[in-house]
Amino acid sequence: MLNIGIIGAGRIGKVHLQSITYHVKNARVKAIADPFMDAETKAFIESMGVAEIHDDYKMILNDPAIDAVLVCSSTDTHSTISVEAINAGKHVFCEKPVDHSIEKILKVKEALEGKNLKFQVGFNRRFDHNFAAVRAAVDAGKIGRPHIVKITSRDPAPPNPAYIKVSGGMFLDMTIHDFDMACFLVNSEVEEVYVQSAVLVDPAIGEQGDVDTAIITLKMANGALCVIDNSRKAAYGYDQRAEVFGSLGAVATANDTLSTAVVWNENGLTAEKPLYFFLERYMQSFTKELCDFVDAIAHDTAVPVGIEAGLQSVQIALAAKKSVAEHRPVKISEI
Amino acid sequence: MLNIGIIGAGRIGKVHLQSITYHVKNARVKAIADPFMDAETKAFIESMGVAEIHDDYKMILNDPAIDAVLVCSSTDTHSTISVEAINAGKHVFCEKPVDHSIEKILKVKEALEGKNLKFQVGFNRRFDHNFAAVRAAVDAGKIGRPHIVKITSRDPAPPNPAYIKVSGGMFLDMTIHDFDMACFLVNSEVEEVYVQSAVLVDPAIGEQGDVDTAIITLKMANGALCVIDNSRKAAYGYDQRAEVFGSLGAVATANDTLSTAVVWNENGLTAEKPLYFFLERYMQSFTKELCDFVDAIAHDTAVPVGIEAGLQSVQIALAAKKSVAEHRPVKISEI
Amino acid sequence: MLNIGIIGAGRIGKVHLQSITYHVKNARVKAIADPFMDAETKAFIESMGVAEIHDDYKMILNDPAIDAVLVCSSTDTHSTISVEAINAGKHVFCEKPVDHSIEKILKVKEALEGKNLKFQVGFNRRFDHNFAAVRAAVDAGKIGRPHIVKITSRDPAPPNPAYIKVSGGMFLDMTIHDFDMACFLVNSEVEEVYVQSAVLVDPAIGEQGDVDTAIITLKMANGALCVIDNSRKAAYGYDQRAEVFGSLGAVATANDTLSTAVVWNENGLTAEKPLYFFLERYMQSFTKELCDFVDAIAHDTAVPVGIEAGLQSVQIALAAKKSVAEHRPVKISEI
Amino acid sequence: MLNIGIIGAGRIGKVHLQSITYHVKNARVKAIADPFMDAETKAFIESMGVAEIHDDYKMILNDPAIDAVLVCSSTDTHSTISVEAINAGKHVFCEKPVDHSIEKILKVKEALEGKNLKFQVGFNRRFDHNFAAVRAAVDAGKIGRPHIVKITSRDPAPPNPAYIKVSGGMFLDMTIHDFDMACFLVNSEVEEVYVQSAVLVDPAIGEQGDVDTAIITLKMANGALCVIDNSRKAAYGYDQRAEVFGSLGAVATANDTLSTAVVWNENGLTAEKPLYFFLERYMQSFTKELCDFVDAIAHDTAVPVGIEAGLQSVQIALAAKKSVAEHRPVKISEI
Repeated sequence: MLNIGIIGAGRIGKVHLQSITYHVKNARVKAIADPFMDAETKAFIESMGVAEIHDDYKMILNDPAIDAVLVCSSTDTHSTISVEAINAGKHVFCEKPVDHSIEKILKVKEALEGKNLKFQVGFNRRFDHNFAAVRAAVDAGKIGRPHIVKITSRDPAPPNPAYIKVSGGMFLDMTIHDFDMACFLVNSEVEEVYVQSAVLVDPAIGEQGDVDTAIITLKMANGALCVIDNSRKAAYGYDQRAEVFGSLGAVATANDTLSTAVVWNENGLTAEKPLYFFLERYMQSFTKELCDFVDAIAHDTAVPVGIEAGLQSVQIALAAKKSVAEHRPVKISEI
Repeated sequence: MLNIGIIGAGRIGKVHLQSITYHVKNARVKAIADPFMDAETKAFIESMGVAEIHDDYKMILNDPAIDAVLVCSSTDTHSTISVEAINAGKHVFCEKPVDHSIEKILKVKEALEGKNLKFQVGFNRRFDHNFAAVRAAVDAGKIGRPHIVKITSRDPAPPNPAYIKVSGGMFLDMTIHDFDMACFLVNSEVEEVYVQSAVLVDPAIGEQGDVDTAIITLKMANGALCVIDNSRKAAYGYDQRAEVFGSLGAVATANDTLSTAVVWNENGLTAEKPLYFFLERYMQSFTKELCDFVDAIAHDTAVPVGIEAGLQSVQIALAAKKSVAEHRPVKISEI
Repeated sequence: MLNIGIIGAGRIGKVHLQSITYHVKNARVKAIADPFMDAETKAFIESMGVAEIHDDYKMILNDPAIDAVLVCSSTDTHSTISVEAINAGKHVFCEKPVDHSIEKILKVKEALEGKNLKFQVGFNRRFDHNFAAVRAAVDAGKIGRPHIVKITSRDPAPPNPAYIKVSGGMFLDMTIHDFDMACFLVNSEVEEVYVQSAVLVDPAIGEQGDVDTAIITLKMANGALCVIDNSRKAAYGYDQRAEVFGSLGAVATANDTLSTAVVWNENGLTAEKPLYFFLERYMQSFTKELCDFVDAIAHDTAVPVGIEAGLQSVQIALAAKKSVAEHRPVKISEI
Repeated sequence: MLNIGIIGAGRIGKVHLQSITYHVKNARVKAIADPFMDAETKAFIESMGVAEIHDDYKMILNDPAIDAVLVCSSTDTHSTISVEAINAGKHVFCEKPVDHSIEKILKVKEALEGKNLKFQVGFNRRFDHNFAAVRAAVDAGKIGRPHIVKITSRDPAPPNPAYIKVSGGMFLDMTIHDFDMACFLVNSEVEEVYVQSAVLVDPAIGEQGDVDTAIITLKMANGALCVIDNSRKAAYGYDQRAEVFGSLGAVATANDTLSTAVVWNENGLTAEKPLYFFLERYMQSFTKELCDFVDAIAHDTAVPVGIEAGLQSVQIALAAKKSVAEHRPVKISEI
């Protein structure tokens, strides 16, 4: 039985708490720390059977009975807490992005060197049933050698403009999942990025120096070309699709819906909207990533999403920002 | 070059005229006869390059240069004209149903005996791209031995109540196509019929002694069970689908639409309605059935839909009427 | 916190144990009874935190701390145990069918009279996301007045022939869900049944006096016609679809799959098979039915599936058997 | 009755001949000219009822009874013959591209000035039922203001490498249709192009200095971003899809297939491949573009695809080539 400490009791921290309690075998949440917990959050934590609730996350790092920590705090603290946790001998599951700074991510990497500790990054979409099926088809050779990767990733509603600055902008906050997905789907790395972007959803986003609509072209190390299209607002909800085209065929996914029911009437056929947002759409993947993290610790095997993936995704995001600023293709090696 | 005469210049006669003129190789329409032609019809016929327009269909039967006739007159004249045409040495393409009376259909069959003449019945749906693909899958063994056949056949709007009596009612007018389809899809015959029916669309139909909604169960000679569901009015248009389920799998069709375009918005995904009615939905099949008729004559091969199919479909329809009247399963052998 | 006792630790008993432990708020399993439990089952029960494991279900009925029992024992004991539980003052959730005998079901009904106890029948499919969406569309008037109901229900593999006799045959074991679904989808009752059936899957089933393939026509009290098609073996897996057609349109469902991924290659487009069988397909519904059962007790509201539904479904099944035996439509009032 | 002369009796010339003969009202082909006609071609032309067959296209230009000419000769002769035809007072329908040289296209434009002659470019895909439905949805405001346009355009098989040079390469030969489609779908122009391309299908194509796989990003004058993905070889056939995403939703098309039949078996669900190539996929659009051309002449209205569209598409293609050569985004104003 693995003892887990969760640092950060926000939305995603609670999701992980619930997943571990109900669905992850051989693991339990021993303690949760967050300096800003309200009564409702505390009640929820207690209802999950967790007795140790702390303000200070160091209580978790100092508890020798805790084997692993989930870093679910705000992004600017991810790398620091990760390093501290590693130095305290804990396995770490860190939410994405590990940091906005390459330097700080490299510090985490250094801290891991020579230690037999697991470090997993929270790219949950790799564990999604649809995207995992695409990767499985690619691995099985069903589409041959990959030529073109297409990822559609559109949010149902833009974030609060105040959040834009904190989050590092669309590429570090939202597209970072798609950058990781591009690498995951064809098991390769990105070499070059070009972005054509615009502010079409909300001028307030542009005033923050960010964009809300983008077509991003990636050149992959395996020769494949990739295109991601992003929007901060799809009127019909969360649009999350992928397609990989190769020498022998293609594999593609559609959005998940609440039911398969369709209505035919004088207006035609109407089917349901996609599941609303990431909590609805990806709930199963949040559970799966933790099952695999716990398994990797239990059997001392490689984690499915390591620090390299965390590093690469931020490099691509920074290259994307540079591409917007300089209006040209940018090589990852420039970052 | 086969010379064809068309008897009856109503809707279906004109469809055949246009098909032959534009799409049927090695055939041309030499003459058309109809006692009730308006100016517009005559103009249309002339625009198709047909110079001989007659009131009396016997002008066609007496023309030794005419090789084949299409009987597109009113149903009550089909069998009589067919017999006359056969006796005049013409190949015959006869619209469905051949007659409402088994006796009269048998007269046509007798007339054909010993003569090397082709007689084809206008069950055009056999030539439809979707239904032909189902039959091809069955023939190719893709679904194994057929167990269950399902046919959905719903019209977009009921006929004029005045037409109900003339047409012989829903089973002889509308379902007759589905009876033939059942036999066609699994290449077998019907042994027994049970109908559960209702008047749900229009009470005026009930007042004519007919029904407008039905679930019809058929027992096929090859052991398969079949169910047809009919409605005289589908709010979303013409619904024409089939499914055959067997020991190794199933094959099923969807409705055809004007385009594949779908719109996603805050109400979900909306796709187009089916093509409106039989002229839109089955136009290609009207051409194909005539190509095959002409080919059968040219190469002296069997027609794809012979008098037996014309006979069987009417037998099933009469059994269906009897099933409604006596509220019990009725064997075809009783008819 | 509601204390629940589970009687019967077979497959479905374990499913309910897991559901309650993980997903049903305000309820817990206090005890489980089964005379034939193996070590693996006991270990599973303990892993769910249940300490009281009995051979004799009367230990549960006699425990005053237990509020409700789930009757998950073999069918022939359902009604007897239900009556005993009711007389012991317990709320009862009883697996389907309540009994093969109308008389015995009526005994359960009598036992309930005058007592303020909840009795729910395990027609879990009513809680399935797809079928619930169909009913919701019907209730919302989206398809107008229902005219035709179509239910496809095909199992991926036939049961062991030895099980056929015990189960009461296909109609009482398998189709009973579909009979209940017909009533549920259009919120009406069945008046008459006609069955056309065959043994096409496995002759051993026929040797047991049962059928494995059927087309069943129902006449509903609200005037709608319904057709169910059943097979004990679909090569492509568990086929569970429904369609309701009405005066303003239709609503239909498709099968659920593990992912939306499709592969295009030189053979065309290939999508996944349906989820394999009822545990995969309906897992979410097993949880939902118990949530609703617990809620009905907590708030003293009507259960969503009462004894009347349990009674009616068996009446229809018995009428279906009679229809096969006598080869004629059978009214429910005859049963 | 409009008299048409066809210059060039290759594949597309024959397609137009057949379309006009069978489907274009108020027009007929009076003469066809081609210096390299084989016996089969001549026989086909005669079977369409065309008596005048010339080696020299000037016979057509000099015939005062001919109102309009279709320029279906090799690309390098399009602009010269167009200018001659215009100067001879003929309306012109010119296959795409009008020329590889902007200068020569401008010569055609100049020739048209001050003359009341129609000049239409053969961008047939605008007349396709699927793409026309997308444009109609955009025009009807169904998706609001366009933000993202996505076009998938993949051929089933690469051309003969020898053809690559003559054709001007992928952008001028194949993608040119997609460039026009981008402009058509959102009724705007292209301002900037960026291409990420590769040789993944056939090294022989690379040896010709061309590419066979590309992701092309366009910035449109109306602010929308567009991405085209191209491949010279899709194993599953001709892949022709489009999607327009906007402030209120999105509209998308799927590929056309020969039938809607799907087979379910132990491997899942299998649907048909797309229609094989452009003659199968776009046949209806070839007819429609000519109907509209003839109508524009008859009613002296604007042609649906004028010289500006012919010019713009070549400008975009040349910008795309420059983008590949210089590995940077290229503005159309640079061309």
